[in-house]
Amino acid sequence: MQPNIFFQHELDRRGFISTATKAAGAALLLNSPLLSFAGTSSTSLNDVTVGEIMDAFIGEVPGAPFSTTVDTLKSGNRDIKVTGIVTTMFATLEVIQKAISMGANFIIAHEPTFYNHADETSWLANDDVYQFKSALLKRHNMAVWRNHDYIHMHIPDGVMTGVVAKLGWTDYYTAQNNIALIPSVTLKELIKHSKQKLGIETVRYIGNTEQACKKVLLMPGAAGGRRQIESISKHQPDVLVCGEIAEWETAEYVRDAQTKGQQLSLIVLGHVASEEPGSEYMAGWLRKKIPGIKVEHVPAKNSLAFM
Amino acid sequence: MQPNIFFQHELDRRGFISTATKAAGAALLLNSPLLSFAGTSSTSLNDVTVGEIMDAFIGEVPGAPFSTTVDTLKSGNRDIKVTGIVTTMFATLEVIQKAISMGANFIIAHEPTFYNHADETSWLANDDVYQFKSALLKRHNMAVWRNHDYIHMHIPDGVMTGVVAKLGWTDYYTAQNNIALIPSVTLKELIKHSKQKLGIETVRYIGNTEQACKKVLLMPGAAGGRRQIESISKHQPDVLVCGEIAEWETAEYVRDAQTKGQQLSLIVLGHVASEEPGSEYMAGWLRKKIPGIKVEHVPAKNSLAFM
Repeated sequence: MQPNIFFQHELDRRGFISTATKAAGAALLLNSPLLSFAGTSSTSLNDVTVGEIMDAFIGEVPGAPFSTTVDTLKSGNRDIKVTGIVTTMFATLEVIQKAISMGANFIIAHEPTFYNHADETSWLANDDVYQFKSALLKRHNMAVWRNHDYIHMHIPDGVMTGVVAKLGWTDYYTAQNNIALIPSVTLKELIKHSKQKLGIETVRYIGNTEQACKKVLLMPGAAGGRRQIESISKHQPDVLVCGEIAEWETAEYVRDAQTKGQQLSLIVLGHVASEEPGSEYMAGWLRKKIPGIKVEHVPAKNSLAFM
Repeated sequence: MQPNIFFQHELDRRGFISTATKAAGAALLLNSPLLSFAGTSSTSLNDVTVGEIMDAFIGEVPGAPFSTTVDTLKSGNRDIKVTGIVTTMFATLEVIQKAISMGANFIIAHEPTFYNHADETSWLANDDVYQFKSALLKRHNMAVWRNHDYIHMHIPDGVMTGVVAKLGWTDYYTAQNNIALIPSVTLKELIKHSKQKLGIETVRYIGNTEQACKKVLLMPGAAGGRRQIESISKHQPDVLVCGEIAEWETAEYVRDAQTKGQQLSLIVLGHVASEEPGSEYMAGWLRKKIPGIKVEHVPAKNSLAFM
């Protein structure tokens, strides 16, 4: 691991140095507001472990810990002492390399590390890419935790909070139904707005670009065709704005709705772009709750280009 | 149903009129080469049923009929006498309306009618779009058969045969491994070629546009992340050309492979465009095997636009 160069700007901004604090323990971390760590002379943030940070977040989630969840450690273990945290959408090889160069040894990712929802790896045992990635993580004793179910079940949902804020819709959004009642714009304007606010090059869409959009059903990520269609059916939005679709499910439903004469459009943002603000939110949560720890949000960036 | 106006050009071209033939039966249809129907005075093609046509195709597939398959009737029944057939990728509302206007009452689609793989409809019972579509099909006594598993297991795979021919790769393609060993081109050229041959406006891709592509892994449709990744791992192609992906599966694998230094690109054609030639193939099969029947391929067209 390299020294603290990477996080220096962050530390300078906050006006303290992590090494100025001394000697912590899991019990204290779990039983106290984490904010109390900042500047507490009895606490060494260098002693904070992966497990303690996981438990601190999970401890805020109603009904947690969950008996069934994909939010497990994909690499490393709970006892690793954290030198710095990177939050991101995907722990891509590039993000891992950046974390290493930054001296961080804990990545909190929103999505899988090994290309499937449950991060099953037995089927990848002989795969070159898997072997390369897992060996790199092991060599650097890097912990990767997926925080998906917990951050969505957190109150507020960290992903939705981040995305809605980035879109400038905080005042228009109702968490209970994922509906943003925005000032009416055309579909074309809505697409431009979403692209600009979320840093997207190109979106896929279905609809008349002049259609008025006011009631937006916002479902970042890949919620699945049935959940997307059931939500459309229930809330009758002007437009579904989502991260990813199965073309043969949601896209075909929207096409049929339009042929039927229904006012319903679809904007597919791309999975990464649609949820990346959730990883920024996570970085903000960590800075607030564990202020001495070194935290950086490293965007996974959009995977796909268009031609 | 309307009269034969729609299929007249097809009938004229073939030099016979379906009504010139008389009196058929399922036993004859199943036991005889269907070609023998053409011009057989004892056969009336107006008496051919949906079930007989299904059975004729299924009868050619090794190991068929399958005990578990999604290739069921989504509307109508086996006993409906066929007035004309439309082949397509999706029995969209628009395709159904065209079939009705053409006087056809049997749609053979490659993909689901009701927005999920198994065409389960209980969850859609109260949905406006589902109700509209199913009522339209019922009102016009329209049969819809999904021919997915059977056409893929047919020898040759009707979809792959159609797609490979459309891409001009018949001489380069090996069915056993889905690999086309094409004359080397850059990724950019391969994208242009695929778009032009398959009538695609925009594709999504990952890769260096100057990368040389010779070994193409061709997987139209939505094979699923695990199958796509396992095939890449096994065959080590220069590029995977596919219909649809889960972004958080295949796209992330390809990104990591590239960061690792592997020469691997990805072209995502779009689901409909990637398999539509399979429905043209099906139309050709019907014309050849049941030459008196009225058959038209109606493209479902790409669902998504880009901005």
